Amino acid sequence: MSRKLGIVAGGGDLPAVLIEACLAARRPCHVLALEGHAEPDKIGTTVAQDWVRPGAAGKAIEFLRAAKVEEIVFAGHVRRPSLSELRPDLRTAKFLAKGLLNGGDDQLLSGVVRELEDKEGFRVVGAETLLTDLLAPSGTLGGIPPNADDWGDIRRGVRVVQALGKQDVGQAAIVRQGVVLGVEAVEGTDALIQRCASVEPTARGGVLVKLSKPGQESRVDLPTIGPKTVAEAAAARLAGIAVEAGATLLLGRAELVNEANARGLFLVGIDTNDLPT
Amino acid sequence: MSRKLGIVAGGGDLPAVLIEACLAARRPCHVLALEGHAEPDKIGTTVAQDWVRPGAAGKAIEFLRAAKVEEIVFAGHVRRPSLSELRPDLRTAKFLAKGLLNGGDDQLLSGVVRELEDKEGFRVVGAETLLTDLLAPSGTLGGIPPNADDWGDIRRGVRVVQALGKQDVGQAAIVRQGVVLGVEAVEGTDALIQRCASVEPTARGGVLVKLSKPGQESRVDLPTIGPKTVAEAAAARLAGIAVEAGATLLLGRAELVNEANARGLFLVGIDTNDLPT
Repeated sequence: MSRKLGIVAGGGDLPAVLIEACLAARRPCHVLALEGHAEPDKIGTTVAQDWVRPGAAGKAIEFLRAAKVEEIVFAGHVRRPSLSELRPDLRTAKFLAKGLLNGGDDQLLSGVVRELEDKEGFRVVGAETLLTDLLAPSGTLGGIPPNADDWGDIRRGVRVVQALGKQDVGQAAIVRQGVVLGVEAVEGTDALIQRCASVEPTARGGVLVKLSKPGQESRVDLPTIGPKTVAEAAAARLAGIAVEAGATLLLGRAELVNEANARGLFLVGIDTNDLPT
Repeated sequence: MSRKLGIVAGGGDLPAVLIEACLAARRPCHVLALEGHAEPDKIGTTVAQDWVRPGAAGKAIEFLRAAKVEEIVFAGHVRRPSLSELRPDLRTAKFLAKGLLNGGDDQLLSGVVRELEDKEGFRVVGAETLLTDLLAPSGTLGGIPPNADDWGDIRRGVRVVQALGKQDVGQAAIVRQGVVLGVEAVEGTDALIQRCASVEPTARGGVLVKLSKPGQESRVDLPTIGPKTVAEAAAARLAGIAVEAGATLLLGRAELVNEANARGLFLVGIDTNDLPT
């Protein structure tokens, strides 16, 4: 029997996708849902679960041990809490005393993973290792390829997102006719797309480029798109979406591709080291 | 008598500030206001003026010649028009045929300046050369200096804005406790601040860092802050604002400093090559 998986759940669809995958594979799992981030209707009631505040690391570790979890996966987004919101317990405070809150998300997440593996003896695995068939493949998905203008916007977007990624900021940018309409920081990709929808409300075209950050702790945070991303992109009159092949989770892939085809958007998995010129 | 100055006016306060400066110095000037961008109530009626579409470069050059303008200053922001909005005349089309619209703003603006100087024989001057007493000095303005945490956020903001600037994107970022809350692209600084105000609505602190881009055509586009920037920053509960000394225009400086003091914000002119560690 495979090792029991602890799913540390934040917001969005990814926790539900992982729960589904465990049930389908008859793998034992236990959900540790983060209060204020995980969504109860997405977690459901099928699988055993505990709910904790993000600041209660001591409690969280107790729950994982009591459930006899061996491997842990982080799934879903967690809005970074302020210190006052966090109300850290002793275990959390000891961890935070290492000064990790002063860095970017990557540094913080890598610190959490190290702590759980080295100090607590869990093994932390990436969602992508459990969901390999959900990773974006290389090349055009669906029926619409990017045209030459789109590739120009993709190349510019890749350079911008990579420059930001080196600073541990965001994962996405929107580019239209060479102009960078918006760049993602903490607001998330949906908010980025919605904001760009109001720039020149009559203009069409443009590309959402979403990449993993260099050095990103992929075991905790993996770029994800789903049918909602396509709907938002269509509402913003974009021409399409480019994601990193092999490093982006596609949620609801069949629906995602159908939605893109229906709305006339391209959807392409790119290798940033090998873009068409 | 000094050379006649042509003020090519976009949106915001800067055109009015330049008109005031010319009137005070008894320097002859003529306003070329860009329709859809320049604001009639800010341009006023005191000074002779023509209004043109941004796409009518041929007409614009005729107006400037007819008014016997010798030097030109660009002032105020111009939202980048889409090609369909632009309806380029022949002169504009010839210029655009050089492919400059495919690059970033810097490339486009440098192209406009080259065209006016080399092809049309005007001299293009920077607003900052006409308004030296409006440039941000080095050090704390007003009564409140940044504290050690603020300097940490300023340093992180400088690195992020410089990385973006190298990609010819934006001029500003907002950082709180080491976290980059938002990064500016085409939406402008006010929209950036407003967006960050809704991130963790109870949290306080953070810094707006606004810099010129490396290689920025300062004769056309100069970072600018005014009392409104301070009011927005206060509404977003920021701790203060850091701008580039010698390269940022402070509009309404007395009011700006009073507003910062009254709202408890610091305001500091920084040298990015010489930040306190």
